[in-house]
Amino acid sequence: MNEKFTEFSLIDFLQSKFATSKKYNDIVLGNGDDAAVIDAGGEKCWVLSTDIQMEDVHFRLKTSTSEDIANKIMAVNMSDIAAMGAKPRFALLSLGLSSHNSMTDTFLKDFSEEMKSICNKMGIVLLGGNVSSTRGPMFVDLFMIGETERNKLVKRSGARIGDRILVTGELGTAAAGHFILSNPEIFVKKKERDFLINKQIRPEARVDAGNFVGKSEYANSMIDISDSLLGDLAHICNASKVGAVLDAKSIYISSELRNLGKQSVIDPLDFAFHGGEDYELLMTASKRDAEKIEEYFYHTLKLRLTDIGEIVSLDEGIKIETENGLHEAKIKRWDHLK
Amino acid sequence: MNEKFTEFSLIDFLQSKFATSKKYNDIVLGNGDDAAVIDAGGEKCWVLSTDIQMEDVHFRLKTSTSEDIANKIMAVNMSDIAAMGAKPRFALLSLGLSSHNSMTDTFLKDFSEEMKSICNKMGIVLLGGNVSSTRGPMFVDLFMIGETERNKLVKRSGARIGDRILVTGELGTAAAGHFILSNPEIFVKKKERDFLINKQIRPEARVDAGNFVGKSEYANSMIDISDSLLGDLAHICNASKVGAVLDAKSIYISSELRNLGKQSVIDPLDFAFHGGEDYELLMTASKRDAEKIEEYFYHTLKLRLTDIGEIVSLDEGIKIETENGLHEAKIKRWDHLK
Repeated sequence: MNEKFTEFSLIDFLQSKFATSKKYNDIVLGNGDDAAVIDAGGEKCWVLSTDIQMEDVHFRLKTSTSEDIANKIMAVNMSDIAAMGAKPRFALLSLGLSSHNSMTDTFLKDFSEEMKSICNKMGIVLLGGNVSSTRGPMFVDLFMIGETERNKLVKRSGARIGDRILVTGELGTAAAGHFILSNPEIFVKKKERDFLINKQIRPEARVDAGNFVGKSEYANSMIDISDSLLGDLAHICNASKVGAVLDAKSIYISSELRNLGKQSVIDPLDFAFHGGEDYELLMTASKRDAEKIEEYFYHTLKLRLTDIGEIVSLDEGIKIETENGLHEAKIKRWDHLK
Repeated sequence: MNEKFTEFSLIDFLQSKFATSKKYNDIVLGNGDDAAVIDAGGEKCWVLSTDIQMEDVHFRLKTSTSEDIANKIMAVNMSDIAAMGAKPRFALLSLGLSSHNSMTDTFLKDFSEEMKSICNKMGIVLLGGNVSSTRGPMFVDLFMIGETERNKLVKRSGARIGDRILVTGELGTAAAGHFILSNPEIFVKKKERDFLINKQIRPEARVDAGNFVGKSEYANSMIDISDSLLGDLAHICNASKVGAVLDAKSIYISSELRNLGKQSVIDPLDFAFHGGEDYELLMTASKRDAEKIEEYFYHTLKLRLTDIGEIVSLDEGIKIETENGLHEAKIKRWDHLK
């Protein structure tokens, strides 16, 4: 009777336990995607997301400032909303405060000043929340509501055979930042160290990109990369009942991560495939629509979009093509309960 | 620069920092009430609430089972929704799991079984959530969405001079349960001990009562008693810009709490005025409407509604009438950050 849950088996267990029945017609999308969706009248719907940042699990107070924490809790939630093709609108905040920060006004003032500044910049309204003390590590838990039109939602489940697999930005950099923070003795040039650590501590949500993908209806499926490229691609494949073939040499690796690979034991490609918390958008679209998305991202958002492979049939599974041939992808994911 | 926040000064600070501007017409009610309210199309609106249960602050694993924790996190959130006159509809769950429970399936299976049973009973759909480990105490954070019609919302700010002040159920019992749990050496009869502890560990949200008050439009203002009778009455008075006179002898004290008063140093009336976590509903209504509410509660819900005083003008403040005359109420509240 003491079987152990992993983070993923627990989420699967809870999702199956609370699988949304179809009896309420104001539930547009139940649990199982990046966010749930409810009806907001007419063609409009509200996209609901929640994500947490926990001290000593998601950040350390030694290396993250209160502004960094505010940025990250907003980014991880905005990323979920963006991955549905929606625009973030409202938030509710839960603060768990421990003695080392609950009583000092500077920490909380800086934190809320930064929250306010991000909210103002993004047009998000913080509508409420709660505070509690804790005898353990501090945490910030956020509920976010985004807005979109019902027929512009981009789900995990829409990938089609023949779709190109596309990803924004650079992969593996957040994991590389985490690696440097955990191994401070590693010699890395200051500029590269700062760049990689910043990607871990201050991830940027692809809000405009996600919003464009939703509005344009160019993509068939989308997810944000929080677990890892392969882990989140597996989410798309499972939900869409398809397989995928990735081309290893097409994966874009930043020069900073490449240099880290030269100076340490790590394999940059391994970080790109298996590293979490990049908060880039992973999507699938027909070849023709993929080109349109790439063009808009390139010209208007100045954001890289890389074509990394193709959606294939379910029975082919998820494979990676390398110089040594085609092999099955091993999906490793960070377990937040371990 | 190290000024210390109390829970209440921090909430005031955050509320003023994030005071909702009027520029979005889909915000029906910004932060500052039991819950925020957004537009759900037509006359319908969504009521948004979030509340947390933290180990060693709100419950102890020695005295609360996983079913108790599920009941309480649902009750405290349903209570906020009910206090707006709304009906709970959807929830998102955040779990912070520590090593003593994250890995045992029995705790989590019992917890989610109970969550599901409450959701089914109340017609609430759990739409998603997240899990994280923590190196400290465990916690459950819930985000709840309720539904009502825009013109049936019952706010804190609607109390009018001459309104009767009404409260459901019994006051001070949850605080008495907390007192017994903290002072196990006190001699109390088993039946009374169980009754009072149960009120602390398994509070009941007045969902049907709140829903009726909303639909009937009989009450001018409403709040749930989470801080304390006087603390939450002060919230109504501040929001409505009125004062209040309470009649001490009208306060209903359960026989169990009266007996505890005889067997220990505690003053039952002190617990009724200052004890938190009763999750009863406190409302104000004209004398005529108060009678209609009382009748419905008595006949249909079998729920006690007590008339405990009258709303007066702002400059009179909050006063209590006792055998020794009229005196100003001292508002003591439990500070969750202390």
